[in-house]
Amino acid sequence: MKTSELEIAFAGSRMDRADRLRTDASALEAMKGPRARLLLLDGIAPRYADEGGLAWGTLADADPEAELVFLGLLEGAACFAAVDPALKVGRAAGPNFRQLFGLLSLDDLAIYGGAKALVDWHARHQFCARCGSQTVLAKGGWQRSCTSDSCKSEHFPRVDPVTIMLVELAGAPEPTLLVGRQPTFPAGNYSALAGFVEPGETIEEAVAREIEEEAGLKVRDVSYVCSQPWPFPSSLMIGCHAWTDDPALTIDRNELEDARWLTKSEVVSILAGEHETLRLPSSWAIAHQLIRWWVNRD
Amino acid sequence: MKTSELEIAFAGSRMDRADRLRTDASALEAMKGPRARLLLLDGIAPRYADEGGLAWGTLADADPEAELVFLGLLEGAACFAAVDPALKVGRAAGPNFRQLFGLLSLDDLAIYGGAKALVDWHARHQFCARCGSQTVLAKGGWQRSCTSDSCKSEHFPRVDPVTIMLVELAGAPEPTLLVGRQPTFPAGNYSALAGFVEPGETIEEAVAREIEEEAGLKVRDVSYVCSQPWPFPSSLMIGCHAWTDDPALTIDRNELEDARWLTKSEVVSILAGEHETLRLPSSWAIAHQLIRWWVNRD
Repeated sequence: MKTSELEIAFAGSRMDRADRLRTDASALEAMKGPRARLLLLDGIAPRYADEGGLAWGTLADADPEAELVFLGLLEGAACFAAVDPALKVGRAAGPNFRQLFGLLSLDDLAIYGGAKALVDWHARHQFCARCGSQTVLAKGGWQRSCTSDSCKSEHFPRVDPVTIMLVELAGAPEPTLLVGRQPTFPAGNYSALAGFVEPGETIEEAVAREIEEEAGLKVRDVSYVCSQPWPFPSSLMIGCHAWTDDPALTIDRNELEDARWLTKSEVVSILAGEHETLRLPSSWAIAHQLIRWWVNRD
Repeated sequence: MKTSELEIAFAGSRMDRADRLRTDASALEAMKGPRARLLLLDGIAPRYADEGGLAWGTLADADPEAELVFLGLLEGAACFAAVDPALKVGRAAGPNFRQLFGLLSLDDLAIYGGAKALVDWHARHQFCARCGSQTVLAKGGWQRSCTSDSCKSEHFPRVDPVTIMLVELAGAPEPTLLVGRQPTFPAGNYSALAGFVEPGETIEEAVAREIEEEAGLKVRDVSYVCSQPWPFPSSLMIGCHAWTDDPALTIDRNELEDARWLTKSEVVSILAGEHETLRLPSSWAIAHQLIRWWVNRD
């Protein structure tokens, strides 16, 4: 199968980001009329329409104190989301994942995911990291600006690159894949290993470092497979494949409760829900899509 | 040629990041002895040794008020960099690129690049973006923590993903590539188009959006080529290739002064320094490496 056939949750938004309008203050104001649509949120969780899907309102539904983020254009209408003033002082509860993935189409997930990442970023960046002064929303919500005349720093939404990788054992009698589990996973659940890209490394170097740190394996021939925006809070998941020649795992017990090899027939049985004890991630996780690609690769 | 044969500036650091030591406060303290090495910086620019390469000192060379960042282990020695207190109040001058790339080997560039991104991040994140309180360095410099008891937010170094792409014209009589120039480029200089990945999009979507915004082209079959950590201030350059079927450019003059198609023979002549008027980026830029890969692909 081609990677373009994968169904990546939070990707594929139909929203036109219309970035040219972000810097046009008068156009932004003119769009804030009665035809504008407001994505209805409870803090950073979506509200659901009775008929299913995301719930939308008008700007009249927004708290008058809320900052408004311009999401883009959808079927000609300007779309906004509001940064609930309560978010600025508290820690917001994320959405219930069962509801989120059960009630939203891929289309709606993509719109919600982009909005959630932005709204959450605004809530957590009310102050200037450089000087500590208050910041204000700018460029329709795609920037925050420091209000101190001696600083005037500009801040941009964070997107944190994370590598997530399928490590395959070379020379195994059957295609064989490394998976691991964190102590917080439900019993029997395993996934691909993952970790943030750090300053000073390439994607390939981040993959190799994570696998060596967490599983004690040297990898080679790292290749990119696909990516996913993951708005909890603001990751860009970069899905890769790598080869190793060494089956002997040295597990970092601070990071992983367990790591193990799975053969392709085990993976197929788990994906079909036919394995007695083991589980792999659901379809909304890029790990699932990577594994699906791996199984159907040829 | 294989992408693994490319020479990516700022990648390939020999430094062992030794991330297990970052959370071990007593090990970190024990390493701060007379054997520890300090990467000597002028603010965020490197100092150069008389014999060439990076200049190193000991922790006694650091300003006593400076925060110390643990870079990792090099030939068994713990390596640190200091966040000059003057950086916290002013805007630091970056390095002179001619010196930087002229005087440092790829090995040294990689060590400097990782250190620069971290030191610069500390200087620009002395305050908590959530509540405005002071932050302090934590985990050997791989975290900052808010000092407010009611907040206690943890902040991590930024790595900002940027897509940079070769767009190739399908059906052209000779392989043909899109390049553009910003008004700030020296006369005759062109490069690959680039732009930040935004919340809510995949790498492939970011590539397609940038090319449509800046050059008015629809692209297809986006593929990943290679990546580069770029510490000015903290980018992860994600190099891609994409196809377009349409040669008609609509240039966004707010972003680009010009964009144009170059044939492979023009590119080869420019790389050889034999073109009368046009220039492409130097070897330390990922755009150069992408173009080199494209020319030698088959």
